[in-house]
Amino acid sequence: MPRIRMTVAYDGTDFHGFAKQQGLRTVQGVLEETLGRILRQPVEVFGSGRTDAGVHARGQVVHWDQDTGPPADRYPYLLRRALPPDIVAVAAEEVPPSFHARFSALAKTYRYTLQRADVEDVFTKRYAWHVPGPLDVDAMRRAASYLTGEHDFTSFCAAAAQVQDKVRRIDAIDLVERGTYLDIRCTGNGFLQHMVRIIVGTLVEVGRGRRSPDEMPDILAARDRSRAGITAPPHGLALWEVHYEA
Amino acid sequence: MPRIRMTVAYDGTDFHGFAKQQGLRTVQGVLEETLGRILRQPVEVFGSGRTDAGVHARGQVVHWDQDTGPPADRYPYLLRRALPPDIVAVAAEEVPPSFHARFSALAKTYRYTLQRADVEDVFTKRYAWHVPGPLDVDAMRRAASYLTGEHDFTSFCAAAAQVQDKVRRIDAIDLVERGTYLDIRCTGNGFLQHMVRIIVGTLVEVGRGRRSPDEMPDILAARDRSRAGITAPPHGLALWEVHYEA
Repeated sequence: MPRIRMTVAYDGTDFHGFAKQQGLRTVQGVLEETLGRILRQPVEVFGSGRTDAGVHARGQVVHWDQDTGPPADRYPYLLRRALPPDIVAVAAEEVPPSFHARFSALAKTYRYTLQRADVEDVFTKRYAWHVPGPLDVDAMRRAASYLTGEHDFTSFCAAAAQVQDKVRRIDAIDLVERGTYLDIRCTGNGFLQHMVRIIVGTLVEVGRGRRSPDEMPDILAARDRSRAGITAPPHGLALWEVHYEA
Repeated sequence: MPRIRMTVAYDGTDFHGFAKQQGLRTVQGVLEETLGRILRQPVEVFGSGRTDAGVHARGQVVHWDQDTGPPADRYPYLLRRALPPDIVAVAAEEVPPSFHARFSALAKTYRYTLQRADVEDVFTKRYAWHVPGPLDVDAMRRAASYLTGEHDFTSFCAAAAQVQDKVRRIDAIDLVERGTYLDIRCTGNGFLQHMVRIIVGTLVEVGRGRRSPDEMPDILAARDRSRAGITAPPHGLALWEVHYEA
């Protein structure tokens, strides 16, 4: 049974996140419904992981199995009209049955965008958090440097999260200035619920001078959500890329 | 009676254009309603000109008169919460009563954005027309060069337009490549209904090799809408800047 791997981009504004939920508009739900219509059979779509309500994706990866159906490389074309305007199928290919969108993923890159201009740009406000006023980007970089490597990220995880093991590895946090925008790119082997958004919220507090960058080791060691900063809003965040073995 | 000049940006997606229309959501309507609430009196807002349904603005300019009210420079702050998220007040200042948003305007710049990547970018699709496939940008530049200067633009005006005098002056049409995007920036002393969109639609036909750039003088001379190309969709267009005497 052929397995199809597909990369999708979506504007998360009008979705209740990636994961299917009864009666709510979700990315997984819309993909299953649309592919089911094309294939005329129920389709179960697996994603590389969830994204929260309001979070975007440039490179979410999904897979599904189909008895018969169009060749994989036809999907971006077929789905251009079949999908609603806020999801785009970027690329698709047939993969061996050993491939799994979630379990084969080696790492993920998220991008969080801050907009620093005094007046918010109406054309990017759906995709960037507006943070006017001075930010000490070097202090933010210094704070971020404490987070790379393998750590217990309990302090940077939503308090309500159910998962037991909160040890994750962050490979890189890069702060890239792009005109009046600041992109925070974060690559790691796995991310806990709200983890990138809490990291960003904490880095912004550092950038505003409300915290010292050198507090970060203590915050990590405390394993206590209340020690880290605010959770940055979802709309600045995008799942940028999922990394697999070449 | 103090006169306030204000620059506003808006995402035109969810507006039925700039100009007030009974029962429809328009930029002018929302501004008058919001300012009326702040000033507790009816306010008449004048714009530099209309924009069509779905067309955006980065630098639309409006003015109004107020008996009493907040100092002009407070408006961007006051309106940040008062206006809906798809309109932003960028700047405001008090101006002499001789200033008029429409009649004092010397020229306007519009920007039309094409997205040329094979797969449409979900984050810019509200603001760019997706035109995949090869485009001969040099041929488009050559075609555009015939349009600068003073001409009768009847062939590039919506057939239904009521205006009599269709002579306008275009100062510049610049095609600027920006990665996989192509910006067409058009500055002139006035624009007829759909004029920029018909120019862009015609330039795209030239870029695709369906028309010769050297047809443009004949199209202008014909004064016949049916001789020019299609009307490009509104969502790629933004009123970029209105120029006044310094």
